[in-house]
Amino acid sequence: MPPYLHPQALVESEQIGDNTKIWAFTHILPGVTIGENCNICDYVFIESGVTIGKGVTIKTHVSVWTGVTIEDYCFIGPNVAFTNDLYPRSHRNPEMQERYFTSDDDSWYRAPTLIAEGASLGANSTILCGLTVGYYAMVAAGAVVTRDIKPFELVGGVPARHLGWVDKQGRKTLD
Amino acid sequence: MPPYLHPQALVESEQIGDNTKIWAFTHILPGVTIGENCNICDYVFIESGVTIGKGVTIKTHVSVWTGVTIEDYCFIGPNVAFTNDLYPRSHRNPEMQERYFTSDDDSWYRAPTLIAEGASLGANSTILCGLTVGYYAMVAAGAVVTRDIKPFELVGGVPARHLGWVDKQGRKTLD
Amino acid sequence: MPPYLHPQALVESEQIGDNTKIWAFTHILPGVTIGENCNICDYVFIESGVTIGKGVTIKTHVSVWTGVTIEDYCFIGPNVAFTNDLYPRSHRNPEMQERYFTSDDDSWYRAPTLIAEGASLGANSTILCGLTVGYYAMVAAGAVVTRDIKPFELVGGVPARHLGWVDKQGRKTLD
Repeated sequence: MPPYLHPQALVESEQIGDNTKIWAFTHILPGVTIGENCNICDYVFIESGVTIGKGVTIKTHVSVWTGVTIEDYCFIGPNVAFTNDLYPRSHRNPEMQERYFTSDDDSWYRAPTLIAEGASLGANSTILCGLTVGYYAMVAAGAVVTRDIKPFELVGGVPARHLGWVDKQGRKTLD
Repeated sequence: MPPYLHPQALVESEQIGDNTKIWAFTHILPGVTIGENCNICDYVFIESGVTIGKGVTIKTHVSVWTGVTIEDYCFIGPNVAFTNDLYPRSHRNPEMQERYFTSDDDSWYRAPTLIAEGASLGANSTILCGLTVGYYAMVAAGAVVTRDIKPFELVGGVPARHLGWVDKQGRKTLD
Repeated sequence: MPPYLHPQALVESEQIGDNTKIWAFTHILPGVTIGENCNICDYVFIESGVTIGKGVTIKTHVSVWTGVTIEDYCFIGPNVAFTNDLYPRSHRNPEMQERYFTSDDDSWYRAPTLIAEGASLGANSTILCGLTVGYYAMVAAGAVVTRDIKPFELVGGVPARHLGWVDKQGRKTLD
């Protein structure tokens, strides 16, 4: 089955996989690739150049910026915030000319972020850039991730600290 | 007076009380019940089966999931995140078949959450599921609620800890 | 060049500066003033009476309430939450009549917030009201700001604590 695009969605990419659903008020820019069988909920913004695997769920009010990669079967909770600039300043400030406009208007350095296969990012968590959230890791709701997270690791808090380990189903395992 | 539905709102339920206002880009699914005299601001998503009392204010960028109940006169701040799955994984992952698809496509367990009469959830707070925020309790901005909150209790931080008590007006009282 | 208003934006103010871009699903109420050369991304809500300077970037899923002022060249990250009520309760509760409706429907006290020139608010940060974030200060992602922040100060955590100092480019300096 072809993807389902809600009539109120704004989808400017044609690289959307079969059986994927894109819901209302969601905005996908040109140059985005989304795999098959994903569920992209309302008010999601996905910027050019982003690749999203298959079977991914992205809940509401999430933006995925250039530099972020989301592998197969990830779960991205509501209001999760990604980033791509380690020292964010307004690009429209002429004093930032050197950082943001050295060769052309869009050449500035974006620190890449990888959300590896099966990882879950809890509601309202914040993911700093230049790091990896590992295979089937789980980030607790409201956590702020400031370092690499290991495969199957459970982290939470601000900044996110090690809380234990989980299995593929998301349940805590013995350490 | 009948409810006011902004022309850019997407309201798929007819169970909206008198004098309630639903603002732009807000999406109410079928099977939602909202009482009278509520104010539901822009970019709010409310999922099927949710019941919201009368006189409730929900600010912008909030999603209310199946399993969450909001009683009369609650205040839900901007970017508040609710949840309904204790071990969130993508439903689209075939390895999660047993958890999410045992009898039919939508039978999985949602841990219920009750926001009791008059409670306030501060801006950007996160509410884990399977718990109750008590009568006229107040959750500080940015808090992550991981346990039941008592009536009139004030909590804040990550995870949210006891900070004191408030009255109906929201002001701190002597302990 | 005149401002660019995306066809899916809802812009009810005419006080939008030259070269400013307003993106999809963004809602600007009447009585808002936005300077020149700003970038206001998708799903931003700006309430009546707000003034925003020139060269400001506001990322996605941000609401700016009456009482908040944003000076030139600020960067407001995705899902940042502002506030304007120190003791938030639902205005629709008749027991709040005295606080919210003493003279007319909209006379209640809003604690003012100033985001001074060049300041950056990181992704998913929360800004309490009645305070100032200083000139070129930087609030880390996920922080909850509960006090005044000094010029060039770097703060982070819940509640936000002093972490150091930054320069105009956002890089840490020696203390």
